Amino acid sequence: MNYSIIRYLLCRVLEFQAMFLALPCIAALIYREKAGWAYAAVLALCLLAGTLGKMKKPKSNVFYAREGFAAVSLSWIVLSLTGALPLFLSGEFPSYTDALFETISGLTTTGASILGDVEALSRCNLFWRSFTHWIGGMGVLVLIMAILPLAGGYNMYLMRAESPGPTVGKLVPRVKNTARNLYKMYIVLTIIEIALLLITGMSVFESMTLSFGTAGTGGFGVLNDSIGSYSMISQGIITIFMILFGINFNVYYLLWQKKFLPALHHEEMRYYLGIILGAVLMITINVRGSFRSVFDAFHHVAFQVASIITTTGYSTADFNQWPEFSRFVLVLLMFIGACAGSTGGGIKVSRVVIMLKLVKNELSYLIHPKRVRQIHFEKHVVNKDVLRSISVFFIAYAIIYGASVLLISLDELDFTTNFTAVAATLNNIGPGLGQVGPAENFSVYSQPAKYVLMFDMLAGRLELFPMLLLFAPSTWKRR
Amino acid sequence: MNYSIIRYLLCRVLEFQAMFLALPCIAALIYREKAGWAYAAVLALCLLAGTLGKMKKPKSNVFYAREGFAAVSLSWIVLSLTGALPLFLSGEFPSYTDALFETISGLTTTGASILGDVEALSRCNLFWRSFTHWIGGMGVLVLIMAILPLAGGYNMYLMRAESPGPTVGKLVPRVKNTARNLYKMYIVLTIIEIALLLITGMSVFESMTLSFGTAGTGGFGVLNDSIGSYSMISQGIITIFMILFGINFNVYYLLWQKKFLPALHHEEMRYYLGIILGAVLMITINVRGSFRSVFDAFHHVAFQVASIITTTGYSTADFNQWPEFSRFVLVLLMFIGACAGSTGGGIKVSRVVIMLKLVKNELSYLIHPKRVRQIHFEKHVVNKDVLRSISVFFIAYAIIYGASVLLISLDELDFTTNFTAVAATLNNIGPGLGQVGPAENFSVYSQPAKYVLMFDMLAGRLELFPMLLLFAPSTWKRR
Repeated sequence: MNYSIIRYLLCRVLEFQAMFLALPCIAALIYREKAGWAYAAVLALCLLAGTLGKMKKPKSNVFYAREGFAAVSLSWIVLSLTGALPLFLSGEFPSYTDALFETISGLTTTGASILGDVEALSRCNLFWRSFTHWIGGMGVLVLIMAILPLAGGYNMYLMRAESPGPTVGKLVPRVKNTARNLYKMYIVLTIIEIALLLITGMSVFESMTLSFGTAGTGGFGVLNDSIGSYSMISQGIITIFMILFGINFNVYYLLWQKKFLPALHHEEMRYYLGIILGAVLMITINVRGSFRSVFDAFHHVAFQVASIITTTGYSTADFNQWPEFSRFVLVLLMFIGACAGSTGGGIKVSRVVIMLKLVKNELSYLIHPKRVRQIHFEKHVVNKDVLRSISVFFIAYAIIYGASVLLISLDELDFTTNFTAVAATLNNIGPGLGQVGPAENFSVYSQPAKYVLMFDMLAGRLELFPMLLLFAPSTWKRR
Repeated sequence: MNYSIIRYLLCRVLEFQAMFLALPCIAALIYREKAGWAYAAVLALCLLAGTLGKMKKPKSNVFYAREGFAAVSLSWIVLSLTGALPLFLSGEFPSYTDALFETISGLTTTGASILGDVEALSRCNLFWRSFTHWIGGMGVLVLIMAILPLAGGYNMYLMRAESPGPTVGKLVPRVKNTARNLYKMYIVLTIIEIALLLITGMSVFESMTLSFGTAGTGGFGVLNDSIGSYSMISQGIITIFMILFGINFNVYYLLWQKKFLPALHHEEMRYYLGIILGAVLMITINVRGSFRSVFDAFHHVAFQVASIITTTGYSTADFNQWPEFSRFVLVLLMFIGACAGSTGGGIKVSRVVIMLKLVKNELSYLIHPKRVRQIHFEKHVVNKDVLRSISVFFIAYAIIYGASVLLISLDELDFTTNFTAVAATLNNIGPGLGQVGPAENFSVYSQPAKYVLMFDMLAGRLELFPMLLLFAPSTWKRR
């Protein structure tokens, strides 16, 4: 492990954190809130630590996979630890653990809250919570790569460790330019959503915070009933943008390059939209009795389905009260998640589709052992390393899942609550069922259980391996 | 598909079924029960159909993997359909579906019942229920192979399709002799258990039925409280034998050959016993407050842990009432299951261990991509085909799992019940939690849901692929 380069990168991250914290400071100035001082103080602290720490240049530029994984997971931990400070210092959170839970939940775009009454928070705190979604959605190191002139071959390692999906979709040959293009599209889509929400009559504050939450597929709202009290047209816009932010960004890049036909034939997107359509139909039929009209049912079901499959976590209805069949369809969507290369979480549609193809392939292998078959995805043969890594990802996922439910079971909450609490955090969704349903929050868990769930949120956002590698002794060996 | 050879084999199976049915006939004679007529009639029917059907010799002896899979899954279906007839004809089951559920549950060594009051059944029905466990435990086609002079290369295909585990452990070069040795050891162990239970003062009827249930890791009892009202010493003997029947039979073969050291170092057995020890300790600490003494707690915990991990399903205590942590440890054991090459179900200890090693390997691969590492198990390198088939097995398992819970959710029972009902059937255990806990039964489900669970029991016992292949059109193509 090349410690000096990790130190250097973490200091860069702190400088960026200082930059991020400027926004809630401005919000506090506008709304004249005292909590602004907490943000100003932490901003100064991060800036100072970052600038001082990076004065000594790294001894060596050696940078390989393990440096990449360690840099990414440690960066996310540093961002969380410092990002929680102003929330805690504002005095509006019961403990530092709770503030940390909220920050990790924000950065990992989970949106699980320990607060029962979010309306009691200062505006600057609400703004910061939502803005962490936006930061976390596309990734911090991707942003640093897009802006800073980081030389050397380590861009690819950072990108691989921070970007979701079974393979890293480089849009253009240079990683730096890929990072820039991703952020450009991200910013443009976010601005369009803000503009549309403003047109529907939403305030500037709400359209910004809710758009941050949609863009990052986060899910923190600014009202206690999440998105329930906005107009149907606003809810509809958010539904559409949730679905849009769950699509693989490669599709937008194709559109940008006017390659409309390839964009339209993007395999992962087609499966993703197909799953959404299927789920909306099934649930609408199942719940239509409890809504005023079929259209009303369709409207709310579409919102909830889009929110869950994209792992956003906004809600306009308490789906915890829905029939068991609908609840379980939503649980399945929690696991599938959004497209790879989007801001959403979960196992990812492409992994699920490739896993289904693996099973189909195995069946034909059992009948015709001598016929060699390959698995195709997006018109390419999926290579063996990718197939292996997908299978192992799924196994690791199941192991972390089981271990997490076991640990939080010590709190003696019921099985539905524990099972879906882990589903909601490991897949970066937010609400689960039972005592962590959309009308409830995560304050029911003890402090140790909260740390387990925090680990799950980070592990889910970084796709397991960077966080697991923190525990492997060989990661930390000096060269 | 060579249809004629499948027909021929199924007729052989019917003849064997007639032989099996002779035993409950004898039981009915002894206890002078009218239900015996039902058994005699079905016996005659099976014998007639089997003898007539196999008179025309198969046109061709072509026999490959798909014939093997089809023969095995169809045999199990035929055994279930005919085995359910006497239960239904006896008039002691509400419907043929229920009788079929009970028979499949018996043959697949699940032990899930739709009956609230088993003590109301005739003795011959109770005997048949338990005897189906014994038949299903080691497999019917394995028995046919052991007895009949089946020529040709198809033994291996049948063995592979019916025996549990990631690889087929051939004890000796000839499959036929392997089958014989397996049955010899199975019979010897069963007789020892019957003898020991007789010594503790149990009746002949009870020691036989309970030993059949233990040997096959089935779980049907003959009293309403399962094993709760027997003496502690009887319960202790059953605990030990459940654990013994969950061990890979290769270990017994090694012992038989006086290879004590290799038997002692059997890797899967060591992990299996380690998991049992760990689970017993954790749960004993968790539940000790609700028992009279630590020893009493240990006694009941050991019984329940042994019953669940071996997928037997007997109970001496209502673990549905235990604290959530203990309940979830048991749920995890449900998934792990017993050793490959035993009569137990579940994912199997060897698969779980190899999957853990796969994840560990992937972590070191991520850090050192150029260092090639192989996975060792039982002192051998696990080859790539086996690794792939284990991963795909797990993926197929998860897919069947999710689909089953989704379908039975239509019954609108709660999530805990649905989730553990599938765990209890797909892993061939018997009781789950909630409304299918050890003090409850599966009659709460509708008929369609029961068929889903019947499919799960068969899929679980035959390790998924034979049952899935029934739905693949290419299985049925003529050559």
